[in-house]
Amino acid sequence: MTITLEQAQTIVRAALEHGTEQGFNPLTVAVLDPGGALVALGRQDGSGHLRPDIAVAKAWGVLGLGMTNRAIAARAADSPEFFTSVATLAGGRILSVPGGVFIRDGEGRLLGAVGVTGDLSLNDEAAALAGIAAAGLVAETGAED
Amino acid sequence: MTITLEQAQTIVRAALEHGTEQGFNPLTVAVLDPGGALVALGRQDGSGHLRPDIAVAKAWGVLGLGMTNRAIAARAADSPEFFTSVATLAGGRILSVPGGVFIRDGEGRLLGAVGVTGDLSLNDEAAALAGIAAAGLVAETGAED
Amino acid sequence: MTITLEQAQTIVRAALEHGTEQGFNPLTVAVLDPGGALVALGRQDGSGHLRPDIAVAKAWGVLGLGMTNRAIAARAADSPEFFTSVATLAGGRILSVPGGVFIRDGEGRLLGAVGVTGDLSLNDEAAALAGIAAAGLVAETGAED
Amino acid sequence: MTITLEQAQTIVRAALEHGTEQGFNPLTVAVLDPGGALVALGRQDGSGHLRPDIAVAKAWGVLGLGMTNRAIAARAADSPEFFTSVATLAGGRILSVPGGVFIRDGEGRLLGAVGVTGDLSLNDEAAALAGIAAAGLVAETGAED
Repeated sequence: MTITLEQAQTIVRAALEHGTEQGFNPLTVAVLDPGGALVALGRQDGSGHLRPDIAVAKAWGVLGLGMTNRAIAARAADSPEFFTSVATLAGGRILSVPGGVFIRDGEGRLLGAVGVTGDLSLNDEAAALAGIAAAGLVAETGAED
Repeated sequence: MTITLEQAQTIVRAALEHGTEQGFNPLTVAVLDPGGALVALGRQDGSGHLRPDIAVAKAWGVLGLGMTNRAIAARAADSPEFFTSVATLAGGRILSVPGGVFIRDGEGRLLGAVGVTGDLSLNDEAAALAGIAAAGLVAETGAED
Repeated sequence: MTITLEQAQTIVRAALEHGTEQGFNPLTVAVLDPGGALVALGRQDGSGHLRPDIAVAKAWGVLGLGMTNRAIAARAADSPEFFTSVATLAGGRILSVPGGVFIRDGEGRLLGAVGVTGDLSLNDEAAALAGIAAAGLVAETGAED
Repeated sequence: MTITLEQAQTIVRAALEHGTEQGFNPLTVAVLDPGGALVALGRQDGSGHLRPDIAVAKAWGVLGLGMTNRAIAARAADSPEFFTSVATLAGGRILSVPGGVFIRDGEGRLLGAVGVTGDLSLNDEAAALAGIAAAGLVAETGAED
């Protein structure tokens, strides 16, 4: 199972539109397959040149560890050394802040992850959720309801 | 001057459509700004997981050297050592085969570059040209007319 | 839009002169285009051999994130893990101390950034401001007035 | 012994002027001290974003091996494997083509090296020689008289 290009493009478009509607800073949105490879990416005009790498990292890290951002943050709080080593192993592609979100289908199967960066982390995450919803898919952030 | 997200998305969409219409293998298309940062990327279902890096490399290399693929190929034929060193300096992001194309506006100003990978190099390049034409912009490949 | 070589050379020269006039330690000054590539660099006699990399990093990081040093410092204080990962992603080319300054034209368009290192960070920043003023351009540091 | 900033800036300026006068492509010129650290760099408008790395590499390699470009080229012809390994060790900062030139004082003492890139290698080298001559210093290229 993996996300399709069409689904990924819908997520990118809808996440960016959410940011524009909400008046967020320019965003970059990356959608990755379960193996951590890019399927689609869009960077709004004015979003800095490192933002594609950060957007990829947000999604790559949750896939790489199989842990949500919040679970990664809890682990980093328990053991900063663990976080430092794993972030280095990953070439920096592990982030503990919100904005990397698992994408699942209606039966809970993993299709990939989306990473959003450019504004406050919770705003980045909100844009990711808007994108996933627009594609008719299910998001998992690790936030408690 | 830099390409806009909207122009970049048009190029990705039209280049992928060209590949589908022509019956090419699944393609990956990357559009970069003049500094070599991603603006938009799309990978068709079935295109391998290294393809995003290759698509980026095709565009990154022509921008980094300010030379078309064909000029890079000629330089590599003259001096394989030059190519080896420069490809290493670039982290591999220099390719001498067709499929990395400069994007210019109607007055010749550099807006970025597009890289396409997945089929024969000349087919990749044809998809890039179709994408740039769809955005109303001007392509430079280094091929003689 | 990008800074010209002539503007960049004026910034380097004037920033270094400012340091000499003020009795600062030997400085290194780097001017980068908006994509993060060097346009001009000068290292004063006695400035250590890592200083060129630090000067580049100060400018590269603000461009890469689209955030001033002070905004980066605030983000790092909120989330040290974010800083760790992003600095690794950037190969260390993100610094949170003053001395990396955006360069804009009179209409606010981004032309690049200057990085200065060698003395106290606020002195480095003062040299950057002197350089940008000498070129008739506009500086953005993130400091409150 | 090491080159001064003033000498290095003279070399950069005169090498770039030579290129302009001769109608060369846009050039990038880097001057390094004997330890391989940048002292001064200038990149002309339109020179690609990888050119600073290439200019540095041309100078860094001759200093790192203590061999001229031509001696490196001869060694690479004898043993391509040697070249490949050393270029990788150096992160690509070894080039066998002309354009990296030792800078010596009137008594033959090593002060550093200059690297020039952007046009044909022999033109790059001619610009380096013009720069070194303008600073009243002595060039060593490895070319036979």
